[in-house]
Amino acid sequence: MKVIFAVNAGSSSLKISVYSAEDRNATPREIANAQVGGLPSPNAKLTYTRGDENIYKSHQVNAESQDDAFSIILNTLLNDQKLDKVKSKSDIVITCHRIVHGGKYESAQIITKDTYHHIEALSDLAPLHNGAALGIVESCIRKLPNTTNIACFDTQFHMSLPPHVYTYPINQERARKNGLRKYGFHGLSYSFMTRSVAKFLQKDVSQLNIIALHLGSGASACAIKGGKSWDTSMGLTPLSGLPGATRSGSVDPSLVFHYASDVGKLSPASTEKLHISKAEQILNKESGLSALAGTTDFTAIAEADRAEQPQHALAFDLFVDRVSAYIGSYYVSLEGKVDALVFAGGIGENSSRFRSAVVSSVACLGFAIYDDANDSISTKGSVVQDISSKDTRSKVFVCQTDEQLEMAYMCYSNDELWN
Amino acid sequence: MKVIFAVNAGSSSLKISVYSAEDRNATPREIANAQVGGLPSPNAKLTYTRGDENIYKSHQVNAESQDDAFSIILNTLLNDQKLDKVKSKSDIVITCHRIVHGGKYESAQIITKDTYHHIEALSDLAPLHNGAALGIVESCIRKLPNTTNIACFDTQFHMSLPPHVYTYPINQERARKNGLRKYGFHGLSYSFMTRSVAKFLQKDVSQLNIIALHLGSGASACAIKGGKSWDTSMGLTPLSGLPGATRSGSVDPSLVFHYASDVGKLSPASTEKLHISKAEQILNKESGLSALAGTTDFTAIAEADRAEQPQHALAFDLFVDRVSAYIGSYYVSLEGKVDALVFAGGIGENSSRFRSAVVSSVACLGFAIYDDANDSISTKGSVVQDISSKDTRSKVFVCQTDEQLEMAYMCYSNDELWN
Repeated sequence: MKVIFAVNAGSSSLKISVYSAEDRNATPREIANAQVGGLPSPNAKLTYTRGDENIYKSHQVNAESQDDAFSIILNTLLNDQKLDKVKSKSDIVITCHRIVHGGKYESAQIITKDTYHHIEALSDLAPLHNGAALGIVESCIRKLPNTTNIACFDTQFHMSLPPHVYTYPINQERARKNGLRKYGFHGLSYSFMTRSVAKFLQKDVSQLNIIALHLGSGASACAIKGGKSWDTSMGLTPLSGLPGATRSGSVDPSLVFHYASDVGKLSPASTEKLHISKAEQILNKESGLSALAGTTDFTAIAEADRAEQPQHALAFDLFVDRVSAYIGSYYVSLEGKVDALVFAGGIGENSSRFRSAVVSSVACLGFAIYDDANDSISTKGSVVQDISSKDTRSKVFVCQTDEQLEMAYMCYSNDELWN
Repeated sequence: MKVIFAVNAGSSSLKISVYSAEDRNATPREIANAQVGGLPSPNAKLTYTRGDENIYKSHQVNAESQDDAFSIILNTLLNDQKLDKVKSKSDIVITCHRIVHGGKYESAQIITKDTYHHIEALSDLAPLHNGAALGIVESCIRKLPNTTNIACFDTQFHMSLPPHVYTYPINQERARKNGLRKYGFHGLSYSFMTRSVAKFLQKDVSQLNIIALHLGSGASACAIKGGKSWDTSMGLTPLSGLPGATRSGSVDPSLVFHYASDVGKLSPASTEKLHISKAEQILNKESGLSALAGTTDFTAIAEADRAEQPQHALAFDLFVDRVSAYIGSYYVSLEGKVDALVFAGGIGENSSRFRSAVVSSVACLGFAIYDDANDSISTKGSVVQDISSKDTRSKVFVCQTDEQLEMAYMCYSNDELWN
C-alpha cells in the first residue's frame, strides 16, 4: 500500500488530492482532498473533504504564498485523526505534481536535481504556467524530505503528434535552437478521457478515435487517433487555439503589435527568473471571453438573455463557432472515423446549453444529442455519460475528467516506483 | 466605350491590364497587359502582350522604382501603334488599383483627397502591403491627371462576415479604437470566383455556397454562404491563417517573443510613414513554406522525391494539413451545404498533385476528384473547370481567377462612373 499526494498548483489556488492503492494493479482510491483558493491572501479559503465527508467548506486561512498554503494543507491532513492512512510525513511515499510545460518529456519523471533544472529551464516557454508548480516542488523537497517527487506534464500526452502537425513554418534552425514547436497542453485530462472512454466503449485504447474537448477557464481540443494525440489546438504555449476565460486564443500573430506600443517589453508580472512580455500578459490575462462579456462566469454567459446582453450572446456564439471549427477540422484529420465527440472541463461538463449549441452546429458530421440525457448530466453519475441521440453515427459523451486521478494512476502504473 | 487600366502593384512587381467595354452591360475585354518584374533594379524585366500577341517576353528595362515601372508601361502602351484604343493619355478614362487593406470600405471607392488619406491611414494595419499601391496612385495622379482613380480593396468582399466571426476576444474598447478585427483578404479573387462558379452552375449568386481556396504565394481560404463571405482564414492582416511562400500563417501568438529578442522594435524595412515591427518582418517575409523547404517554388516542393528531400515532403504535408483543416471547419460553418470546393491561385490552379492530396484528405466530407480531369487542367480551358468524380455529393472545381478583370468588372458595373 502506498499513499500518493497529487498536487495541482495554479496561480491563485493549490489543490492536493490524497490517494491510496493496495498494489500497482489496483485503481487508486481518493481518500481525501484539500484546496486553498484565493491565493495569496490573509483571507484565503480552505476546503477539505475526507472520503465523502466535507470537513471544511470555505474555512478562512492566512496564506500569503503557495508555500503557506502547502503547510496549511499538510498540517490539516496530518492532524486529522480520522485520516488513518496519513499519520506521519513518512506515510506520504510519492508526491506527484502537475507541471504545465514539460518540453519533449514523453512520460512522468522522478524529480532529481537534473530534471528539476531542466523543468526550470523549460519554464521560459511557459513563464505564466510553470512557476507556481515549481515553487511547490521546492516546498515538498523541504517539508517532505522522504517523499519521491514525480513531475507529470500536460505536454507529455502530445509527444505523439506527427511532424507535419507539430512543425511551425518558420526558420527551422531557430525553431530547433529555441524549441519552437507545437507541444499541446491539457494532456493529463486527455489521457484520462482516452482511458475512460475506451473502457466505457469496451474498446482497446489503441483502437480508439475521439475528438476530445477540454473546455474550462483554459480551453483546448484534441484529435485522438488510435489512443494517441494526433492534433491539438494549443501550441508552443497554452495561448493559441481556443479562447479561454482571459486568454485570446489564436489571433493574427501581428495583432498585438497594433494593440499597444512596447508590447515586446517586459510585463510588471515578470520576475528575475521568469520573463513575460507585455504582449503575453495582455493576450493571456486581459483577453478571452471575459474581455467580451465582462465576466469569467460561463454559466452567466450561456444563460443570459440574448437581447438584453448582446455581448454575452456574442461571447457564446464566438466560442461555439471556434469549438465547432476544431471539430470540423479534426473530423477531417481523423478521416471521419470518430468513435465519439467528448466534452470535459468546467464548461464541457456543466453547460448543457453550450453542448447543445455545439452539437447542433456540427450536425452535418453526423452528431446529435438526446436532449433529456444532455439536460440530466450529474456529477454523481458515472465518469462517462452518453448524451447521444439513438440514431447517430458517432457518439457524444460527457466525461468528468480528473487530472489528479490521472497523475496518481501514472504513478501507480510506473514500474520504477514499485521496485 | 471606355478604356480601363487595372493596376496591381506588389512589392517587387507592377502589373497593368488594359480593358475596354462598349457599355456598362458588356463584359470587359482585355486588350493588352504589361508587367515589370524584379523591382527595383536596373535589370528589371518587362513583359508585354497585346491581345494574343506577345510583344516583349522578358525585355530588360531600368526601373529603380515603382514609379519608373509605371512610366515604362505607360510609354510602352502609348507608343504601340497597333493598340488603337490607347492613343493618348486622355483615352485612359479610369484607372483602378488593387489595394490590399481597405478597412471597413464595403465597395470600390473613387479616390479623392479624403479617401486617399483614409487609405493611407489604414496602411498602418498593413504596412507591408498597401505601400506600393499607394505609390502608384500618386504616380497616376501626376502622370494621368484626367483619369478617375478607383481603389478596389481585397477586404471589401469580407465586410459581410458576421460579428461572431470577425470579432477577436480581446479588450473591446481597444479593438474598436484601433480597428482590430478580422478583415480578410484576397477578396477580389473570391468575388471573381463566386461570380464565375455561380455562372458555371447556372445558379443565382445569392444561392451559392462554396469553400474557396486562393492558394498562391499568399494563401487563404474562404467560406462563401449565399454568395457572401461568411468566414475566411486571413485576419487583421494577411499574416494569419494558412502559411504562404514566406509567411508563417497562424502560429502561437506568443511564438515570436520566443523567436528573438527585441521583436517589438522597428524593422529596418520601416519607413518614416510605415512602421513595421521586426516580428512582422520575420513572420511575413522570413517564414512559410520556403523556410521549411528552402525554395518558394511550389512545383519543386510538390514534385520532390519524398525520401531524398524530406523537408520538401514536410512542407507539402503541412500545407495539405492546414488547407484540409480549413475545409473541415468551413464545411461545418456552411452546415454541410456546399455546392463546390474551388481551387484557385498559382498553386491551386497549377498543382494537380496538391489538389489530389487535399481532396483525398477530405474524402470523408464527400469530395472526390476524377484524376484524368485533374491532370489535364489547361490555362487555355474555360474559367471554371470541373475535376469532380461523377458520383460525389459536392463538386470540385479549378477556377482561373483574375483579380484585374474583377476590378475592371467592378468599374464597369459602377453606376457613378457611367453617369
